[in-house]
Amino acid sequence: MNELFLKELKDDFNISFNNTAYLEEAFTHSSYVNEHRNQNIKDNERIEFLGDAVLELIISRYLFEHYPTLPEGHLTKLRARIVCEASLSLFAKDCGFDHYIRLGKGEERMDGRKRPALLCDLFESFIGALYLDQGITKVLEFLNQTMFPKIQSGAFSHVMDHKTNLQEYLQKKGEITIDYQLVEEIGPAHQKAFVVEVSAEGQILGQGQGRTKKAAEQVAAENALLNLQGQ
Amino acid sequence: MNELFLKELKDDFNISFNNTAYLEEAFTHSSYVNEHRNQNIKDNERIEFLGDAVLELIISRYLFEHYPTLPEGHLTKLRARIVCEASLSLFAKDCGFDHYIRLGKGEERMDGRKRPALLCDLFESFIGALYLDQGITKVLEFLNQTMFPKIQSGAFSHVMDHKTNLQEYLQKKGEITIDYQLVEEIGPAHQKAFVVEVSAEGQILGQGQGRTKKAAEQVAAENALLNLQGQ
Repeated sequence: MNELFLKELKDDFNISFNNTAYLEEAFTHSSYVNEHRNQNIKDNERIEFLGDAVLELIISRYLFEHYPTLPEGHLTKLRARIVCEASLSLFAKDCGFDHYIRLGKGEERMDGRKRPALLCDLFESFIGALYLDQGITKVLEFLNQTMFPKIQSGAFSHVMDHKTNLQEYLQKKGEITIDYQLVEEIGPAHQKAFVVEVSAEGQILGQGQGRTKKAAEQVAAENALLNLQGQ
Repeated sequence: MNELFLKELKDDFNISFNNTAYLEEAFTHSSYVNEHRNQNIKDNERIEFLGDAVLELIISRYLFEHYPTLPEGHLTKLRARIVCEASLSLFAKDCGFDHYIRLGKGEERMDGRKRPALLCDLFESFIGALYLDQGITKVLEFLNQTMFPKIQSGAFSHVMDHKTNLQEYLQKKGEITIDYQLVEEIGPAHQKAFVVEVSAEGQILGQGQGRTKKAAEQVAAENALLNLQGQ
C-alpha cells in the first residue's frame, strides 16, 4: 500500500491498519482487476457491500439518538440525504481518498477518479475495510471526525429541523400555536448573537442563542423538545 | 409488559430485558397509540428504523463471511431475499411475536395481527429493542438461533448456490470443466446419505455428504471453495 497514504491515515485520522490487505482491497476498482486478471487481486465491491451496511447502522443510531422525537419518516429521509452518492463522494474527496484508488487505464482516462459513484463506493469500501480490521467502534471514531460534524452543522437538515420537530411533537395533542420571540441581542454589530424564546399557549418552553435569528430559533426549539421530554 | 411473553423470551431465547420499556415500544403499533393519545405512548416505528439497520449489518456480515467468494451482486440479491417482508414476517410468527403486539381496535378487526408488513416491522422493532437494551452481540446470538439456521439450510439460496460459486471462482482463470461424482451411498434405504466428490482438470477439490445427491454436491462445492481459499 502507498506509504504516503498510510502516513496520511495515521496523521489525519489516527488510523493504522493491522492488516493492510483490507485497505488494498478497498482501494482497488474492478477496472484495475480486469487489467490484471492473472494476479488474483480482489476488487472493492464485496467490501463495499459490507461498508454500506456498517455506515447505515452507525448513521441510523446517530440520528435515532440525536433526534429523539423525530418521526420515523423524517429519520429515513434524513438518512437518505446523508448516505447517498452526492454526500459520500464529497466525504471521500475531503478525506483525500480519490488520490489512492487503483483504477484501470480506461477508467483513469475517463476521469473515473472524479466520478461521484466511484468515490461513493470508495468511501463505503474504506468503511468496510476499517470495520473488518478494527471493528465498529473505530469506524464510529472516524465518522465522529468526518461525517458527524457536518450532520451537526445542519448540512443535511433542510427538509427537517427542530422547529418542525417541535411542532409535530406539540400537535400530537391537537392544534397548538407556537410562538418565537426575540428576547435579546448580544455583542457588537460584527459579532452579534440573538436570543430567542419559544412558547406555546402562553407557556415558555425553551430558549436558544445563535448567530442569526433563524439559528437561535432552531436551538430554542431543540431545547424546548429536550425540556418537554424531561417532563 | 405481558408476563407470559417475558417468560417465553427467557425460556426460548435466553433473553431478559434490562429495560422493558424498549420491548413495550417495539410491541406497540401506531394504531394503538392513535387510540390512546393522552397516554404519551410511543409506537414502534422509530425503533424499527434502527432495528432494520442492525439486521441489515448482521446479515451482511454473515453473508460476507459465509460466502467468501460470492460476488457483490449475488450477496445483495441473497440479502434482499433474507431481509424482506415475506421472510421476516415468518420469523416474527415463528417466534410467536404476533400474539403480543398491541394493536388498535380497528387494526385488530382488520386482522392486522396477521398482516405480513406489520409482522415484518415487528420483527425489526424487536431487533431494535434488543440492540438498544443489550447491544449487537446479543442480537447476533438471537439471530444465530432463529435466522442463521434457515440461511444455512439453503432456504434463501435458490438463486445462488455453492456450485455456482465454485464455478465462478474457478472460471476466473479461464474456462474449466467441473465434475461431480457420486462415490458412496451410506446407510439403509430409509436413511440414506450420499457422498459426492468434486474435481476439475482431474484434480479432486473436495468431498461432501448429504441426504440427497444435490445436497451432497452443494456441500462438496462449499468444501472445495474452502480448500481452494486455504491454499
